[in-house]
Amino acid sequence: MPPQAQQWESPHQLETPDTLHTKEWMRRYQRIRRASEQLCEPLCTEDYVIQSMDDVSPPKWHLAHVTWFFEAFILVPFQSRYRTLDSAYDFLFNSYYETHGVPFPRPRRGTLSRPTVADVYRFRAHVDTAMAELLESPPPEHVEEILRRVELGLHHEQQHQELLLMDIKHILAQNPLCPAYRDDLSPPLEDAPGELAWLGYPAGIRSIGDDLKSGFAYDNEGPVHRQFLEAFQLGNRPVTNGEFLAFIEDGGYSRPELWLSDGWQQVGQDGWQAPLYWVKRDDGWYHFTLGGMRRVDPQAPVVHVSFYEADAYARWAGARLPSEAEWEVAARDVAMKGNFVESDHLQPVAAPAQAQSLSQLFGDVWEWTGSAYRPYPGFRTLPGTLGEYNGKFMSGQMVLRGGCCATPADHIRPTYRNFFPPHARWAFSGFRLAREA
Amino acid sequence: MPPQAQQWESPHQLETPDTLHTKEWMRRYQRIRRASEQLCEPLCTEDYVIQSMDDVSPPKWHLAHVTWFFEAFILVPFQSRYRTLDSAYDFLFNSYYETHGVPFPRPRRGTLSRPTVADVYRFRAHVDTAMAELLESPPPEHVEEILRRVELGLHHEQQHQELLLMDIKHILAQNPLCPAYRDDLSPPLEDAPGELAWLGYPAGIRSIGDDLKSGFAYDNEGPVHRQFLEAFQLGNRPVTNGEFLAFIEDGGYSRPELWLSDGWQQVGQDGWQAPLYWVKRDDGWYHFTLGGMRRVDPQAPVVHVSFYEADAYARWAGARLPSEAEWEVAARDVAMKGNFVESDHLQPVAAPAQAQSLSQLFGDVWEWTGSAYRPYPGFRTLPGTLGEYNGKFMSGQMVLRGGCCATPADHIRPTYRNFFPPHARWAFSGFRLAREA
Amino acid sequence: MPPQAQQWESPHQLETPDTLHTKEWMRRYQRIRRASEQLCEPLCTEDYVIQSMDDVSPPKWHLAHVTWFFEAFILVPFQSRYRTLDSAYDFLFNSYYETHGVPFPRPRRGTLSRPTVADVYRFRAHVDTAMAELLESPPPEHVEEILRRVELGLHHEQQHQELLLMDIKHILAQNPLCPAYRDDLSPPLEDAPGELAWLGYPAGIRSIGDDLKSGFAYDNEGPVHRQFLEAFQLGNRPVTNGEFLAFIEDGGYSRPELWLSDGWQQVGQDGWQAPLYWVKRDDGWYHFTLGGMRRVDPQAPVVHVSFYEADAYARWAGARLPSEAEWEVAARDVAMKGNFVESDHLQPVAAPAQAQSLSQLFGDVWEWTGSAYRPYPGFRTLPGTLGEYNGKFMSGQMVLRGGCCATPADHIRPTYRNFFPPHARWAFSGFRLAREA
Amino acid sequence: MPPQAQQWESPHQLETPDTLHTKEWMRRYQRIRRASEQLCEPLCTEDYVIQSMDDVSPPKWHLAHVTWFFEAFILVPFQSRYRTLDSAYDFLFNSYYETHGVPFPRPRRGTLSRPTVADVYRFRAHVDTAMAELLESPPPEHVEEILRRVELGLHHEQQHQELLLMDIKHILAQNPLCPAYRDDLSPPLEDAPGELAWLGYPAGIRSIGDDLKSGFAYDNEGPVHRQFLEAFQLGNRPVTNGEFLAFIEDGGYSRPELWLSDGWQQVGQDGWQAPLYWVKRDDGWYHFTLGGMRRVDPQAPVVHVSFYEADAYARWAGARLPSEAEWEVAARDVAMKGNFVESDHLQPVAAPAQAQSLSQLFGDVWEWTGSAYRPYPGFRTLPGTLGEYNGKFMSGQMVLRGGCCATPADHIRPTYRNFFPPHARWAFSGFRLAREA
Repeated sequence: MPPQAQQWESPHQLETPDTLHTKEWMRRYQRIRRASEQLCEPLCTEDYVIQSMDDVSPPKWHLAHVTWFFEAFILVPFQSRYRTLDSAYDFLFNSYYETHGVPFPRPRRGTLSRPTVADVYRFRAHVDTAMAELLESPPPEHVEEILRRVELGLHHEQQHQELLLMDIKHILAQNPLCPAYRDDLSPPLEDAPGELAWLGYPAGIRSIGDDLKSGFAYDNEGPVHRQFLEAFQLGNRPVTNGEFLAFIEDGGYSRPELWLSDGWQQVGQDGWQAPLYWVKRDDGWYHFTLGGMRRVDPQAPVVHVSFYEADAYARWAGARLPSEAEWEVAARDVAMKGNFVESDHLQPVAAPAQAQSLSQLFGDVWEWTGSAYRPYPGFRTLPGTLGEYNGKFMSGQMVLRGGCCATPADHIRPTYRNFFPPHARWAFSGFRLAREA
Repeated sequence: MPPQAQQWESPHQLETPDTLHTKEWMRRYQRIRRASEQLCEPLCTEDYVIQSMDDVSPPKWHLAHVTWFFEAFILVPFQSRYRTLDSAYDFLFNSYYETHGVPFPRPRRGTLSRPTVADVYRFRAHVDTAMAELLESPPPEHVEEILRRVELGLHHEQQHQELLLMDIKHILAQNPLCPAYRDDLSPPLEDAPGELAWLGYPAGIRSIGDDLKSGFAYDNEGPVHRQFLEAFQLGNRPVTNGEFLAFIEDGGYSRPELWLSDGWQQVGQDGWQAPLYWVKRDDGWYHFTLGGMRRVDPQAPVVHVSFYEADAYARWAGARLPSEAEWEVAARDVAMKGNFVESDHLQPVAAPAQAQSLSQLFGDVWEWTGSAYRPYPGFRTLPGTLGEYNGKFMSGQMVLRGGCCATPADHIRPTYRNFFPPHARWAFSGFRLAREA
Repeated sequence: MPPQAQQWESPHQLETPDTLHTKEWMRRYQRIRRASEQLCEPLCTEDYVIQSMDDVSPPKWHLAHVTWFFEAFILVPFQSRYRTLDSAYDFLFNSYYETHGVPFPRPRRGTLSRPTVADVYRFRAHVDTAMAELLESPPPEHVEEILRRVELGLHHEQQHQELLLMDIKHILAQNPLCPAYRDDLSPPLEDAPGELAWLGYPAGIRSIGDDLKSGFAYDNEGPVHRQFLEAFQLGNRPVTNGEFLAFIEDGGYSRPELWLSDGWQQVGQDGWQAPLYWVKRDDGWYHFTLGGMRRVDPQAPVVHVSFYEADAYARWAGARLPSEAEWEVAARDVAMKGNFVESDHLQPVAAPAQAQSLSQLFGDVWEWTGSAYRPYPGFRTLPGTLGEYNGKFMSGQMVLRGGCCATPADHIRPTYRNFFPPHARWAFSGFRLAREA
Repeated sequence: MPPQAQQWESPHQLETPDTLHTKEWMRRYQRIRRASEQLCEPLCTEDYVIQSMDDVSPPKWHLAHVTWFFEAFILVPFQSRYRTLDSAYDFLFNSYYETHGVPFPRPRRGTLSRPTVADVYRFRAHVDTAMAELLESPPPEHVEEILRRVELGLHHEQQHQELLLMDIKHILAQNPLCPAYRDDLSPPLEDAPGELAWLGYPAGIRSIGDDLKSGFAYDNEGPVHRQFLEAFQLGNRPVTNGEFLAFIEDGGYSRPELWLSDGWQQVGQDGWQAPLYWVKRDDGWYHFTLGGMRRVDPQAPVVHVSFYEADAYARWAGARLPSEAEWEVAARDVAMKGNFVESDHLQPVAAPAQAQSLSQLFGDVWEWTGSAYRPYPGFRTLPGTLGEYNGKFMSGQMVLRGGCCATPADHIRPTYRNFFPPHARWAFSGFRLAREA
């Protein structure tokens, strides 16, 4: 093993070059890179430029940033003959890697008309060509490290594919014209999941997290460690729009005793009266979706709620949110199937009618847990600049689990820890109830 | 004369249809409308979308708003068979006419990707076609009123042509790539205007303002009224970059005694140390221009300074700013020639070397006066919604005079009153000194 | 005349020592200084400490600041043996004289519990003793300059007496307990001023301002200069609460066409629906006064309105606000009598019933004019630090004239120029209408 | 047992009236109530009024609010003949109990001069008299519930005693005069704690939290539950000023890689360069203490650092903060002695020189843990309005443990969970290091 890889302190053992060829990585690279561009095909040039709030990035920025990741962390260090297209890109498309240099201020991303969309696609092609050359004949002493970073870069790009959809939705939703992202999305099935059922789990010591040895996982998913869980029960499916409507109609948004103090302040400050994107019309509730403005389906999981709203609903319902460990224990035994981006709904859909068993853990909606996003015991960040990937955000955020209708199916894991601030609503975020046994 | 025109309380007598045919108006309409689009030709689609600060509007918004003006104030009231392209445009492209309806919030203009640039050009073509039809055979009982509004609408569009250039400059200046708007601008002559000379004007009663009867003027330029002016002197040319540099080097930005209190606060809050767009490099001062980043020319008039900076410079120089009446008295006797948009510099240039006489009153830079923007005695707004055009801004702003290098030459008049808040710097604003006799 | 006085460039000729003895100045000094303390007698210690908004200063700060004025500008320069009580006072009680040193930040004045109220009174006594000694035997070569500064300092203190009452009112008004400042104020007479009458003034050249030679005036009141006024008419009395109520009931606060753009924005942002301190109860409108919560008297002048509200009312009434020159022309011929602080109403009262002639120009309410606060032609500030007294505020403010029910009677003049930002409402500000002849 | 007590769902079994008489409670009540007033004896009246930032309350507000607690939750429900002094107090002195009524806005507490300090002491005496009468002959059917609420009210008052000292310190620290709260505080011993030592703890299932049955504890300390802890090590004492200075001198405040992202943003925004209250002078670092400005003692625990600073230091030192469970496991075996408010230092002091064993767990500084403040498994709030006491703040805050130099000694417990937002620095907050075994 080369010294570089030792310095890198490999988070998991890469499969041997015999079983996993760089050619296979090249195919995976091309597939995932192409998927990003396919997501943007329905966009007008103008859509690529907008930053509708500080948390949202213009789509062309996403496309460029994920490309910069390969340039900055693979091509520049490992491909000596690589030449960058424009030295300013290194500053413009660095997101938050402070040790790499001072990034361009995030809230100003929407002020940049140049590089243009065409320039960004040129940048992508330029980097893709260089990556193809590198993977064609990688320097043998660095091949393992390169492939490790390729893998990380591709997971990073998949994360941004989901962000792209969230951000495009937010951008289009600002517009009084209510333009649909696509009008040919897969329609939901006409399912009715039935009453909520509770599934029980016994107390005991559980192994939580990923060992970072077999298969890919982010640093924040490890190390594996033991947690003692008291017995608990978990709802068999996420809370639905219909159930959430009952909360609204019971005055849920105007009863301070149901809310965390920070949440109650947010309700007042932002005038929340329903989930994000909901609009009340004379004939009932509608919400903006990537397919345009649609009537709210009472059977589908509620989505675009904050942690505060999830928590308030749970209190109203006499329940609570599961901890992330409880969620993970339940998810270990479940097949990772669900309504992912490949289902092409791009919106949560109702669980199958007969489902009394555990359903929709994966896909549909990211599920808020009651766990603050903090490091696991023994957590260590990646070395160097890549150490900024996850660890530095372990403050002021809550963990969500399970992926959503905008997540690539091969991007999710039972141990996957997503995180957002408790007031955030523009992700495809919903929730599932838990309670003491 | 039809009753409508009487109700309209005509601000000036229109020349008779015999001398000024609607066909001539049609040509003028086409010429000015075309000019707006020509200004946008160097733009990428992405440039059209950006709102770099609340005061700036995306270029495509400008193009649509001036078109909406013709639709809302001429086509809808006078062309009964006119059909709008999209009813939402009436809301999206209303700037500030509150009595016409609640406008889309100004600071959110940069969140709209749709209508696209192509849509906006379609909207322009749609309105232009309808306007051509209307002017082809205008209803005789309304022809005078229609032509009056066409004239206003064209002056309005010319104002926005200047705003387009100001805003495009601001948009491109945010970008670390410093992209030039055009790289084929007319180069300045190598002139050196020489020392400042003072020209004297005697005391007396002066007639100020426009009679609103012959030729076009905005409502805020009238009525003609008498003002008594004490004797005064006026600088023969605007203050130059070289002179302003002496102020900077004398600590001008760090000496509170030179500043109005509000100005001094702004200096501290925004960290002003030089005019907007100036950057100090190792080999001297540069500034961003529509032709890209250029070395500051010491002979050219200083531009992109606020009223506060102009006022502080004047105090430092033992002088003051002229009142708008003083400026107007001097301007009455001067030919309206100068560096306007047609000169294609799009940047102030040095006065001719020999000029000891009054120069550059028109063009180059809008000149801050010491006069607050308030109504003249007897001022009356236009009736109806168009009454919101000028009058409601008569608070918190200072008057500027004379037009600039981005102003169409046939848009300016000696009585023209431009106005900006005292802290504004993104207009092509400079100044000229005055003092007591 | 000593060289210092020449440098000082005396704004007006002081009466000779023969006619105006320093002993008389001493008596005036003592009378005015005592008056400040008498105004504070009804306060609790706690009242002295509060800063209810950035514009308001704690009463103890006022008492200390006016004392600092005598220390900094008279005792320190002219009394060599003077010793300050605490060197930090020079920093804490400097209001805005930047050339004297960096003042303690205004919005933080309410965070200072020390020096205590007792300390502040000790500071006053300390300075008063030193001033008495100085005026007992002033250095002959500086006596004129000293007396000139004493005069300025006393006018300054009188200004702060009015500010004290404005600020105390604002402080007490924040409190849900609605505590009265005093419950023994003079009750208003039961007058009814009758219908508004219009008084006419012919066109002509008028002499405006003070010659700064005879009697005291601030630098901003001069120099005397000529203005041409077109013929105009002036309302015989200020607008009353009853008249203003008709504006409210006619939807005045919800009709954008009546408002300046900045004013309309302020209405929306701050939710204005009536003058400051007004509260609607089941049985009608009440307002908070220095005598506690009282029913609004429809006959008394409306007070605590902003320039924006005055301007909107005038537009609604088909009139306008007078210019400050128009006001001054009318005021020259009127006796300076009125409802001043000595009347002990501390609230505007109704004009006498029979008054068809010009009334209430002085006292009752400061009258907003339509004039922006800008320098007169030929204006020069006082030399040195005292030059910051008035001149640097000549931006962003409007002129008010005539004094109010909280102004000391001997503090006002026909040429007196008060000024506040157009949104300010906590002064005793009302208005009078004008219109074209 | 009476029905009320059942409804109350008693958090712990009260000792029987035989062993713990209401007379003893009366003595405890009087002792603790008197202690609050003793803390305020060094204050001037003016000090009682100031709110130096939104998080700080004026001292007179603290004195009134803790009194309101007894009135609202004991006298009004259980003493039918009780008459309140002023009905507005119920609104003014409610802190955050939304289900009790809309509280007066927290950031406006500093605008209230009335009720005066004397009024507040009258309010205290009024309530104390009524409480004495009630405890003299409590209604037998409610005695248990009353005593339970008295106990809660007294713990509440002790919490506010600590807040009083924190807030007084912050208030006085704003003042450029740097007034000391007291100049007769106990001087620290001249101790030098020596090098940091690490103490090891084995892995295993631990019982965490309070059973809420024997002795008092807040609802948030329970219920007892099991947690699995991996083996860990704990620093034998808190980090000292001297150690923290090494972090500062090593560029700790300018190295982004050491900081959580939110923390790094706060460093930039607030310009942090050292702990709160630290000032660098020519001869070294000083800090403001309740005894005035003093030289920083390198041997004493660092205090007034945020969670972000504690976390960054730990990362710099190659360690981490302990979880609250780890801290509690260590604290179970340690005597609850330390530098509390009774030591009368009111500032952390150095650990004894010889201490290689675990020291200063209790007292000196509240110790930031790495645990977000979230409910324990099975947590239930108190019923009714008192349920707002703790639970609703379980978002966006971090847990601190162990009490500080301003905590009453009988107020602390090993299970006590204090909490502050991660950026807060005005509490007496320090930290201790932990690391993996």
